[in-house]
Amino acid sequence: MRFDIITVLPALLESPFAHSILHRAQKKGIAEIVVHNLRDYATNKQKSVDDYQYGGGSGMVMSIEPFAACIEKLQAEREYDEVIFMSPDGVTLNQSMANELSIKKNIIILCGHYKGIDQRIRDIFVTREISVGDYVLSGGELPAAIVVDAVVRLIPGVLNDETSALSDSFQGELLDAPVYTRPADWRGHKVPDVLLSGHEAKVNEWRHEQALERTKARRPDLLE
Amino acid sequence: MRFDIITVLPALLESPFAHSILHRAQKKGIAEIVVHNLRDYATNKQKSVDDYQYGGGSGMVMSIEPFAACIEKLQAEREYDEVIFMSPDGVTLNQSMANELSIKKNIIILCGHYKGIDQRIRDIFVTREISVGDYVLSGGELPAAIVVDAVVRLIPGVLNDETSALSDSFQGELLDAPVYTRPADWRGHKVPDVLLSGHEAKVNEWRHEQALERTKARRPDLLE
Repeated sequence: MRFDIITVLPALLESPFAHSILHRAQKKGIAEIVVHNLRDYATNKQKSVDDYQYGGGSGMVMSIEPFAACIEKLQAEREYDEVIFMSPDGVTLNQSMANELSIKKNIIILCGHYKGIDQRIRDIFVTREISVGDYVLSGGELPAAIVVDAVVRLIPGVLNDETSALSDSFQGELLDAPVYTRPADWRGHKVPDVLLSGHEAKVNEWRHEQALERTKARRPDLLE
Repeated sequence: MRFDIITVLPALLESPFAHSILHRAQKKGIAEIVVHNLRDYATNKQKSVDDYQYGGGSGMVMSIEPFAACIEKLQAEREYDEVIFMSPDGVTLNQSMANELSIKKNIIILCGHYKGIDQRIRDIFVTREISVGDYVLSGGELPAAIVVDAVVRLIPGVLNDETSALSDSFQGELLDAPVYTRPADWRGHKVPDVLLSGHEAKVNEWRHEQALERTKARRPDLLE
């Protein structure tokens, strides 16, 4: 699977893609993540990628030409399943969308900045607009990293333990039960006895009860 | 405002905090973001910060002792308003939560990894559990960066243009209207005439109509 991320701040994405699961997935050849500097596609002498907005108002708008040049260059090299624009008014990312994206082959992600991007980029090139949540961020870079992380970890072979992704919260219908590790007693705060009992059926029953209780208390919507 | 982020992967957070608005806020002295390596607080010879979970099952669980040592060291140095744990079963971050956090002074953020963290850390130290959305990620680092970005940009003086944060999506009740910049005609795709009219009242009317239409189409829940 290949991600091409187009951004005005490629340096911001350096460390998230160089560590942990995303690093491992790239080393194993399972995922390729290529970050493109939008400024390399600026067409004017000043290498500017934004301009004042038509109709007036504060905030710069990202121009169509550099995005178009980069997208068209990539699309001439290979076929893309999606051109995603990260935007707070897109469809909110959830686990089933991450599952769906994890079986795609090539994906372009556009990162916005400033006041937004020229609407024509969205109208002409973008196939899908995704939001990571109902909050405003300074750019689309962290949201792009979120999408890549959520998706890449689902590709078989990326996680060490094949069962780990399947037992995550949101893959089933319940939140996870509480987990504990050593020491069994920390300053008088003890691990629940049942987990130390060695009685597998009782442990599973307790975990299911706890997961149900936590889901009821925190996310009753998941049970509907 | 000060953020202390405790993580097993401090290097992952290097570039997000070294660029853009978060860099500017730190340079101006408005925000201080300190990343702590959890491994520095490991108490055993192997410097391990995780262990097998009680009751059996796949996935390692992060131990209480290193987190406790780091949190207690920080709390001895200054008072903290919140100890936040980034978790998919926390309360979902939204703009009003970001607003609320932006007036706090000192915040600790714990990043989980693997199967989760020992429940006693959550019970004893954590004051607030925050999720950035209904999807599973490989760790709490990107979510922590999301929270810091969403919050820091709201602190007065961080954004260049004081009006920009106020006119963002989600600060009002509507999504943003489409924006356009030069050229007015790109391969036959034209900017709407009204934006070129110079007629301010008509521009405002058009923007309000477009914002309303987009919100109705994409996020009717925001109008309820």
